Amino acid sequence: MNRNMGFSVTTLGTASAIPFPARFPTAHLLNADERFYLIDCGEGTQLQLRRYKIKFQRIQHLFISHLHGDHVFGLPGLLSTLSMMGRKMDLQVYAPRDLQKNLVQVLYQYVPNMTFRVEFHPLNTESEEMILDDGKIQVWSFPLAHRIPACGFLFKEIQKPRNVRKECLELYNIPLKAIPSIKAGCDFVTEDGTCIPNERMTVLPAPSRSYAFCSDTAYTESYLSRISGVDLLYHEATFLSSDASMALKTFHSTAADAARMALKSGAKKLIIGHYSSRYPDISVLEEEARSIFPETYAAKDGDCFEIS
Amino acid sequence: MNRNMGFSVTTLGTASAIPFPARFPTAHLLNADERFYLIDCGEGTQLQLRRYKIKFQRIQHLFISHLHGDHVFGLPGLLSTLSMMGRKMDLQVYAPRDLQKNLVQVLYQYVPNMTFRVEFHPLNTESEEMILDDGKIQVWSFPLAHRIPACGFLFKEIQKPRNVRKECLELYNIPLKAIPSIKAGCDFVTEDGTCIPNERMTVLPAPSRSYAFCSDTAYTESYLSRISGVDLLYHEATFLSSDASMALKTFHSTAADAARMALKSGAKKLIIGHYSSRYPDISVLEEEARSIFPETYAAKDGDCFEIS
Repeated sequence: MNRNMGFSVTTLGTASAIPFPARFPTAHLLNADERFYLIDCGEGTQLQLRRYKIKFQRIQHLFISHLHGDHVFGLPGLLSTLSMMGRKMDLQVYAPRDLQKNLVQVLYQYVPNMTFRVEFHPLNTESEEMILDDGKIQVWSFPLAHRIPACGFLFKEIQKPRNVRKECLELYNIPLKAIPSIKAGCDFVTEDGTCIPNERMTVLPAPSRSYAFCSDTAYTESYLSRISGVDLLYHEATFLSSDASMALKTFHSTAADAARMALKSGAKKLIIGHYSSRYPDISVLEEEARSIFPETYAAKDGDCFEIS
Repeated sequence: MNRNMGFSVTTLGTASAIPFPARFPTAHLLNADERFYLIDCGEGTQLQLRRYKIKFQRIQHLFISHLHGDHVFGLPGLLSTLSMMGRKMDLQVYAPRDLQKNLVQVLYQYVPNMTFRVEFHPLNTESEEMILDDGKIQVWSFPLAHRIPACGFLFKEIQKPRNVRKECLELYNIPLKAIPSIKAGCDFVTEDGTCIPNERMTVLPAPSRSYAFCSDTAYTESYLSRISGVDLLYHEATFLSSDASMALKTFHSTAADAARMALKSGAKKLIIGHYSSRYPDISVLEEEARSIFPETYAAKDGDCFEIS
């Protein structure tokens, strides 16, 4: 595959709050045609980015789901390193409002001569919102059901226009100015008045791809319509169903919950993570989810999930 | 060796500020007879403690050399995890004064129901000071020569008293109340007036062991007398001598500087660390130091240096 046409998610950390050997806390990197979007930034995220040879100066947008340490504590280190490496490009940070004052103080004390600007975008943790449209990707945030305000995120490629067949340009003598409307789906009328149907001149572009990130959250169907038909769904699966009472108490999900969400939303593939340290072997979580939604993968640190 | 009589240093992180794969930022754990002292707490320290199966609830004292992120950013995560695991024991933190307000704010926001108390001890970054005597170990801080106020630390076992030979107790009919003075080195006069010289009744205890931590710092002899004759010296070696101009500019040391310090202080063994990411192969730093001080070891993450 052309590397510049990829759409992949690297799971940099798959632990929950209590660390477990060989599992870092949550951070995901979405690479959409070499545009990098970082989602959550648990302690050690910059070390994982290094380890997996990800050029992290390319990250333009950073999304923080909620203000629990295992999703945030890697942020000062990452920003500090980006500055030491001389970054110039602004960084867009989307996070619950309270992060800002905390971040400002830490950066003031530890990164006094910051080389780049952090632009802060407070999340609406009460209702769904489109928070970014960069011409290639649209991003929505939507409330999750956790102990503190938390958001999930949907990343969706903007549908590309139809491709005009090159041989048709000469065949029908199509002028340059007519191309945008043909790409948009219109028919074309030649000089002698013949109407050429659009489908004869164009081919469908690759379908737009999508990724939804849902962590940390109890099972809730409140955002089901937003993620409907998503290509790749990440849903936390902190516990097994046999520990459902723990999930209920802490506003987390079981592997079965994650699978039900994948099934109901019509997701094509499910990845799970945010495993409690009580499960040294995560295959039990994968098995539980697969019994409901077979296309489930229990992510490990460093796994890369490609959407073709 | 009896595990409870050990004196060892585990180097949890050996990187400098810019992360490098498989090298975490600075943190050392001193285990002195199963008393745990943590020195510096770079990002990911709690992950390393987990990885090397160190029971980190045992840490009673935590020392922060200076307020650069690569020596501090692991602190919120560690404290947060200790609390989640239900720690009750107070934690003593020795650090430059400015850490306190930053820490208080972070903990207030991220660890609202902390289960234990952090007792903060501001360091004197201007002059040498004994900062702890817990009956087993004495700890001194001393100023280093860095871009911001920074302290090194000397850990020294308190000399144990002489051991009284069991067979002498009966032989000379020594009463219990006389034992402390004999252990302290005094002679003993028997009931019939005979003076028994101390060396006939006692054996020397194991010599007290010591560890000095010197990072981050330019080469300076200002604390040479404090660490004189130390058993194990850790001295940063960020650069090779061929990059001495970088060391000078950033107030760091070369491997040769570290070796000279070991030589002049009469240290028995030197470990180096805090390597710049420009050296993927640290053996070049070890070789440079060994040409001056042969008993040098380039620490890797997870190495454990035992003082017998």
